[in-house]
Amino acid sequence: MERVYNFSAGPSMLPLEILEKAQSELLCYGSSGMSVMEMSHRSSDFQKIIDDAEAALRKVMNIPENYDVLFLQGGASTQFAAVPLNLLSEHKCADYIVSGQFSKKASQEAKKYGDIAIAASSAGANPVFSTVPETKRADFRPDADYVHICFNNTIYGTKFHYIPDTGNIPLVADMSSCILSEPVDVSKFGLIYAGAQKNVAPAGLTIVIVRHDLVGKARPDTPAMLDYKEMVDNGSMYNTPPCWCIYMAKLVFEWIDSIGGLEEMKRRNEKKASLLYDYLDSQHYYTATVDKKCRSMMNVVFVTGKPELDEKFCKAAAAEGLKNLKGHRSVGGMRASIYNAMPYEGVEKLVEFMKKFALENPKVAD
Amino acid sequence: MERVYNFSAGPSMLPLEILEKAQSELLCYGSSGMSVMEMSHRSSDFQKIIDDAEAALRKVMNIPENYDVLFLQGGASTQFAAVPLNLLSEHKCADYIVSGQFSKKASQEAKKYGDIAIAASSAGANPVFSTVPETKRADFRPDADYVHICFNNTIYGTKFHYIPDTGNIPLVADMSSCILSEPVDVSKFGLIYAGAQKNVAPAGLTIVIVRHDLVGKARPDTPAMLDYKEMVDNGSMYNTPPCWCIYMAKLVFEWIDSIGGLEEMKRRNEKKASLLYDYLDSQHYYTATVDKKCRSMMNVVFVTGKPELDEKFCKAAAAEGLKNLKGHRSVGGMRASIYNAMPYEGVEKLVEFMKKFALENPKVAD
Repeated sequence: MERVYNFSAGPSMLPLEILEKAQSELLCYGSSGMSVMEMSHRSSDFQKIIDDAEAALRKVMNIPENYDVLFLQGGASTQFAAVPLNLLSEHKCADYIVSGQFSKKASQEAKKYGDIAIAASSAGANPVFSTVPETKRADFRPDADYVHICFNNTIYGTKFHYIPDTGNIPLVADMSSCILSEPVDVSKFGLIYAGAQKNVAPAGLTIVIVRHDLVGKARPDTPAMLDYKEMVDNGSMYNTPPCWCIYMAKLVFEWIDSIGGLEEMKRRNEKKASLLYDYLDSQHYYTATVDKKCRSMMNVVFVTGKPELDEKFCKAAAAEGLKNLKGHRSVGGMRASIYNAMPYEGVEKLVEFMKKFALENPKVAD
Repeated sequence: MERVYNFSAGPSMLPLEILEKAQSELLCYGSSGMSVMEMSHRSSDFQKIIDDAEAALRKVMNIPENYDVLFLQGGASTQFAAVPLNLLSEHKCADYIVSGQFSKKASQEAKKYGDIAIAASSAGANPVFSTVPETKRADFRPDADYVHICFNNTIYGTKFHYIPDTGNIPLVADMSSCILSEPVDVSKFGLIYAGAQKNVAPAGLTIVIVRHDLVGKARPDTPAMLDYKEMVDNGSMYNTPPCWCIYMAKLVFEWIDSIGGLEEMKRRNEKKASLLYDYLDSQHYYTATVDKKCRSMMNVVFVTGKPELDEKFCKAAAAEGLKNLKGHRSVGGMRASIYNAMPYEGVEKLVEFMKKFALENPKVAD
């Protein structure tokens, strides 16, 4: 069976050379005599893996020294609770920017723990969430313990083209679907979190990058596993961490470093996204429905305008090895998720297919 | 590099044939054209994997229909909080049996959420926790929302040789280090949980088996990811689950079924443990320090009585491919963890080595 181009929104493609490396050492890692899947997390072999993972991530993201890097479990949805449990420390209030389903979910979860306000929302856009809100400093309550944002909206195919100015209020960003896609100035954020299953590693790992002064303020009833201080104090090993995912993440971080870091990653991602968006802008068969200035570089959403054609498109594409192009059920149409590991050739093939499909399936008037 | 016998307390060995299968389909699972690590959790391929995993686990453990099976993240330590958050629903009080560090930790975490009493403890044993407490129904408060027990104590090498009689009070058991090692009557428990990294799969997966009437009673401020009802309602996919670990777990469940189920697993485990315990009982160089009637079938703890000899033993054993025999830092000595995937030959080699080491390293009087 041949490998396909997998446009899934996540879990999603991993670089082939990394899968091949993982395969080659699956039965025996280095001179350990065992698989990484069988390795004690207290062993020197694994300690080196997690240390190397952190060092490589710090290097490629240029993470300042006053930030802690954590390798956790539970996905972004666990952070939806961990963030307020840890950071609603002073005024018990926080402001959320709502730009899609996940930021909305994050704000709803936070309401269990404090006074949460929606500082800005693009829920009223047409189509819904097809843009991201503009914000200015005055939109945020001066006593907010933090401001929360979802930087790239996987479902709607939008991203923030600016970093909101929150003044002295720590900015917390869910970067699950854009982490490591391009350079980001970590110092502009109080906390960044990301589920690994899109740009980093297999599902089951969550990365948290947190400014050290924000650690150690959790509510007393915070579950220990959600308390950043417990995790910082124990080097992400308060209990057994997701060792295999951390190993895969290390390989991915080192791969990004080896190709030239996030500048080169951005160049490649822009090239892929441009190919697709330029084609979308050059014709009228498909429509890219989101606000041009908020277009995501990772998730490209488009429609034919006819649901039955959309469905035919996805089926026919899958038959040609272009899989998982169906849009999220709440949006419909198509979504091509073109994360770091999607080769340029995959997007080329997609555009060729789109041209062919448009020719072969003319739209008839209703 | 040759594979070693890995006596690690966890993560620990996986059956070689399962690692080989995972390796063979790592780049491409079935006709999917992708790795399980790249697969959308919403795809039909993955849905079949998780459905098959649940079906196989239900079959081998003979799980009654009125129990839900969940595949979660965060390890047993997350359940230390999830259990009280979900089950302290009526009287906000629960009783804990403390038989080792993990049950103690579980009780301490639970104190964040309610009135927690230690119904029985073996902390006073000599050596500490070298036995498990005997309990009778009268030891438990009649209004306790549940009684918690850790069924096998990984660090101390003890296990419960009986199921405590708690009357109508739901019994909650941490089975992280003994799940699937032998048949267990699930109907005697309200809830069973287990980190996967000892007998089931790579670290990063937690199994929860919960009687359905106990689901849906979580405190309102329970993080959604720790709320059993959210997980039951979403088939363990409230968010992206640890797909690779679930796939590996499925292979292990099916392997257990294929060899004859838990009766055969128990026969194999008893044979391995007997070989080691019988040797320990037949000589005086090494001492098995735990109460004979509470001996764990999974974690066999022994000492030479001289810390410098213990250290030499572990080093020399590692050099012969018998790795990770060092006891937990709080206990010292040696610990041979002989989970399901440890072959009989591994224990044979260990006993041979123990005999040789005893001959070559006579104890001199201090």
